[in-house]
Amino acid sequence: MNVEGGHGGVAIPPAKPFLKWLKCSLKETFFPDDPFRQFQNQPPSTSFLLALQYIFPIFHWAPRYSLQFLKSDVIAGITIASLAIPQGISYADLANLPPILGLYSSFIPPLIYAMMGSSRDLAVGTVAVGSLLMASMLGSVVDHNHNPKLFLHLAFTATFFAGIFQAALGLFRLGFIVDFLSHATIIGFMGGAATVVCLQQLKSILGLQHFTHEADLVSVMRSVFTQTHEWRWKSAALGSCFIFFLLITRFFSKKQPKFFWVSAMAPLTSVIFGSILVYATHAEKHGVQVIGGLKKGLNPSSLTKLVFVAPYMSTAIKTGLITGIIALAEGIAVGRSFAMYKNYHTDGNKEMIAIGTMNIVGSFTSCYLTTGPFSRSAVNYNAGCKTAASNIVMAIVVMLTLLFLTPLFYYTPLVVLSAIIVSAMLGLIDYQAAIHLYKIDKCDFLVCISAYIGVVFCSVEIGLVIAVAISVLRVLLFVARPRTSVLGNIPNSDVYRNVEHYPNAIHVPGILILEIDAPVYFANASYLRERITRWIDEEEDRIKGTEETSLRYVIMDMTAVGNIDTSGISMFEEIKKIVDRRGLQLVLVNPGGEVMKKLNKAKFTEQIGQKWIHLTVEEAVEACSSMLHACKTSPTKNESEGWNNV
Amino acid sequence: MNVEGGHGGVAIPPAKPFLKWLKCSLKETFFPDDPFRQFQNQPPSTSFLLALQYIFPIFHWAPRYSLQFLKSDVIAGITIASLAIPQGISYADLANLPPILGLYSSFIPPLIYAMMGSSRDLAVGTVAVGSLLMASMLGSVVDHNHNPKLFLHLAFTATFFAGIFQAALGLFRLGFIVDFLSHATIIGFMGGAATVVCLQQLKSILGLQHFTHEADLVSVMRSVFTQTHEWRWKSAALGSCFIFFLLITRFFSKKQPKFFWVSAMAPLTSVIFGSILVYATHAEKHGVQVIGGLKKGLNPSSLTKLVFVAPYMSTAIKTGLITGIIALAEGIAVGRSFAMYKNYHTDGNKEMIAIGTMNIVGSFTSCYLTTGPFSRSAVNYNAGCKTAASNIVMAIVVMLTLLFLTPLFYYTPLVVLSAIIVSAMLGLIDYQAAIHLYKIDKCDFLVCISAYIGVVFCSVEIGLVIAVAISVLRVLLFVARPRTSVLGNIPNSDVYRNVEHYPNAIHVPGILILEIDAPVYFANASYLRERITRWIDEEEDRIKGTEETSLRYVIMDMTAVGNIDTSGISMFEEIKKIVDRRGLQLVLVNPGGEVMKKLNKAKFTEQIGQKWIHLTVEEAVEACSSMLHACKTSPTKNESEGWNNV
Repeated sequence: MNVEGGHGGVAIPPAKPFLKWLKCSLKETFFPDDPFRQFQNQPPSTSFLLALQYIFPIFHWAPRYSLQFLKSDVIAGITIASLAIPQGISYADLANLPPILGLYSSFIPPLIYAMMGSSRDLAVGTVAVGSLLMASMLGSVVDHNHNPKLFLHLAFTATFFAGIFQAALGLFRLGFIVDFLSHATIIGFMGGAATVVCLQQLKSILGLQHFTHEADLVSVMRSVFTQTHEWRWKSAALGSCFIFFLLITRFFSKKQPKFFWVSAMAPLTSVIFGSILVYATHAEKHGVQVIGGLKKGLNPSSLTKLVFVAPYMSTAIKTGLITGIIALAEGIAVGRSFAMYKNYHTDGNKEMIAIGTMNIVGSFTSCYLTTGPFSRSAVNYNAGCKTAASNIVMAIVVMLTLLFLTPLFYYTPLVVLSAIIVSAMLGLIDYQAAIHLYKIDKCDFLVCISAYIGVVFCSVEIGLVIAVAISVLRVLLFVARPRTSVLGNIPNSDVYRNVEHYPNAIHVPGILILEIDAPVYFANASYLRERITRWIDEEEDRIKGTEETSLRYVIMDMTAVGNIDTSGISMFEEIKKIVDRRGLQLVLVNPGGEVMKKLNKAKFTEQIGQKWIHLTVEEAVEACSSMLHACKTSPTKNESEGWNNV
Repeated sequence: MNVEGGHGGVAIPPAKPFLKWLKCSLKETFFPDDPFRQFQNQPPSTSFLLALQYIFPIFHWAPRYSLQFLKSDVIAGITIASLAIPQGISYADLANLPPILGLYSSFIPPLIYAMMGSSRDLAVGTVAVGSLLMASMLGSVVDHNHNPKLFLHLAFTATFFAGIFQAALGLFRLGFIVDFLSHATIIGFMGGAATVVCLQQLKSILGLQHFTHEADLVSVMRSVFTQTHEWRWKSAALGSCFIFFLLITRFFSKKQPKFFWVSAMAPLTSVIFGSILVYATHAEKHGVQVIGGLKKGLNPSSLTKLVFVAPYMSTAIKTGLITGIIALAEGIAVGRSFAMYKNYHTDGNKEMIAIGTMNIVGSFTSCYLTTGPFSRSAVNYNAGCKTAASNIVMAIVVMLTLLFLTPLFYYTPLVVLSAIIVSAMLGLIDYQAAIHLYKIDKCDFLVCISAYIGVVFCSVEIGLVIAVAISVLRVLLFVARPRTSVLGNIPNSDVYRNVEHYPNAIHVPGILILEIDAPVYFANASYLRERITRWIDEEEDRIKGTEETSLRYVIMDMTAVGNIDTSGISMFEEIKKIVDRRGLQLVLVNPGGEVMKKLNKAKFTEQIGQKWIHLTVEEAVEACSSMLHACKTSPTKNESEGWNNV
């Protein structure tokens, strides 16, 4: 009988030199997409050009730029500018920063991104959630009313650190950290943040003078309903009308995608209409708050305004780190989704460097945190943009606005800005995605809803911490509790599959076949020991009452055990002892190359005996069955030979 | 041609009701060992007895206790008591606590453990690393010289919280948290801590008056070598003699295991001999420091001494949490290893409850942190203990010591205690285990050595943080970077295996077979997308220059994909798009039950088509090959049908 397996058994792969192994591992870990592949076998001049194109994708697409592209990009650029201007002003207001910063931030960063970004559809600008987070985190150390200058400088500093952090993540190829914010977490977190932002808008929509500094639902509701006598009905009516108008146009554009420009132009239309209304009725003298004077001129330098002194710098670093990673998660996810629609590829690590650089440069030129917001990028995409040139067009339009048109915003009522924010935010509450999660994966839904509740009922920071904690806990649970299953034979075949999944699969008498579905290492080794012992117990209990052959062999299918560490090897040694003690024989099936190498180094292959390691379950079962039969015919002699003395 | 697969294809398992699924998942997560199985189908009276035996294993073994057992346990108990008394005093000194606490801590806790513990070999007592950690963590808020009373009370409080935390971990079945301290981490950390503890002993061995408060190597070395003129040669010579004596006895006992009692008795012998020497020579008056008066009598109550007030409680909680988990890790690992030698089973969660309870009760009775130290348990095991009754014997001996013998320790020189600590600690520096790690798993070795360096060069806390951070980072990397491999056909068989592991495995023309070796979820989804795309790129590049059939099919073996979440499903949808765009056909092989269910709910099975999901790689390759041949014979017509229009 050939117990060594019909195909030569399980080989022990040749040992790799340590340095080669290290190089391979580092490459797999940090360069899974192998960005240097294109440089192989190229002359130096080509390599230089490729490197330039790699760092600045503009050199890649600009030479092939056509008039047709220009036409599309100009249209898209003007469209997103008309959205960017009112949104920029609104979000700067949300961040408790001077409104003009919103315009500054829509001028320089898009230019940087246009040169360095690998997405063709991302439209750069400020985001509501980032603005709110910045306001709340910096607000905890500096009051923007008492010391607006310091607050502003801290905002630049936080933006600087966000940029540094983002670019560093990209440079050190640590982009996978962003992956730990799962999709479900982001849906819940964004929805919660959008709800909180909407609640904040009740202040200007209801025209309230006093308002809570807390952002949670309970505080806001208490603040709103304890001062019903302060509600300004005019302001509320105006706000509701604008929200209704914006939502109607959005609904219309959604139904008729070719009229995308209707919803894209709606915010600017609202601003113009609202400003004219205030100007005509002199409502600013009757309690309707307006933006007031905006300084003419381009971004002043803010290089000297960065704060690197002790008590404030740590807050700026913390704020930069958290807002930076949130902004990154949004920007990268948005870039990737649109790339998917248009069938091209964005490089996560490169995107991080681009977004980081644009924030670093932004922090030197009076801009605050920018990224690629979903709403603006969607408009850009629908407007038919072809390349990142649409960002340049937008920047030019914003530049012209900064140079010539800022006085026009004097009479723009704040309530219109709130309406713009509310209508944008309502789009971020993606209840359909939440329902989808509920249907497919209850656990993902739980993560999502916890993040939402955390943000809405506690605070944005706490919600974020809850969301990340649940995500990490889930990873740890995934890792600590891998699946194991019992395999059975699918009738009329030599295929062995999970008996729970295939109820027609039949047990092989006297043999228990287990499959382990994860790499075995310290985090799950002791769980696996318990679980495997329990499988054996349960199998023995089941057999006890029946006429079946008693258990003799435990076959472990290790196909799915991708790797093992020293704790995992100890676990197998313990299992071997447990199994031996019960007079059973342990059989391994198809350990992978890495696993086989380590089992061999630890001398476990010797302990178990090469003849008990098979290439396929089929072979292992065959070998065990024939031994079982041999034992049955002469039980006293072979029994001891069969499984005790090996 | 039967593309549906010869065995009826891959089934979608029947939907489980949500509550049943939740119950199953919770059971797998928190009760993998199914402790309630024994209660099934039992009358209430038996259940009650079983429950009592479950919580207090003493009711399980006491009724069957025999005179033979008693004899063994008495010998073992006396042996460990002779080790426990000097060690207890030494470690209490290390923790900057009154020496008598070491005796108190060897009296009550062993009694509690004897009733509740499930290990037969664990000998309870204080540990050096825990003592050192407690001294350093509490010492950062309260100076034990200036306010010894508060320091003492804080130690009780920290012990109380350690106990609460340990018991809670067991009760809530969160024992897997301890598993995240991997074996490699513990070896490095323990080795480092032992080194640091040894370094601290230089103070009393060299008889120095002034000594650094830092514990790191650099500070200690500077402190020692800047005051060479202060070295007391007498003290150093005495210390070296005792260390030499202790090491010699240990070496002897290791070579001749039946003379275990030689090394076990050596510390007590040293204490007696050292005390007589001091008494005879009146060395205490010539600068040799001695223990001094120890209070006679049993443990006084410390119930009212616990500190629950604001500035100190948080330190006590933090200290309790960290020392508690370290103590737990040691106690459980030690219990488990000896259980493995003697072929019985310890229950991790139950052990936590036992250790937790013994610390809670200990904190009420003037004891500080106890667990099951390795050295003492090894002596217990070698002395032939049969049950936890050896702990009771030890407690009785310690009780007698407390009642009658404490005055005898008056003249015990501190240098002997230091020698005892040093010789115990040298055994903890497990360089052989580190070499073993280096040989088998370089990554584990790196974790181990980082923990060691962190502890020795920075501080015990920083070393611990580094060790845990590396362990967690490693889990995250394991999770974020799962293995994928290309499969090839093993000649003369229908088995498909990793081509790197089996160099003789051959590529199937026109078909790329990939295997994914991990559950697919948010943490690795985007990596897998990149990596799979690169496999396809590389395969296409490879084929380009050759005469081979161009790539047509991408088969993904999902055997090892134990689970999937919504991010994972999106990943597969993206891969499908990427593959479609290149005119290739995606084929799935053997998705597991859970995966199949979710893919079906997300309608991915419809997108890909049931006929492209096979049960085995063999079937999938067969189906693809026959299609390829059909295409070759009439390329123009079938080509478009074959892989573009599906």
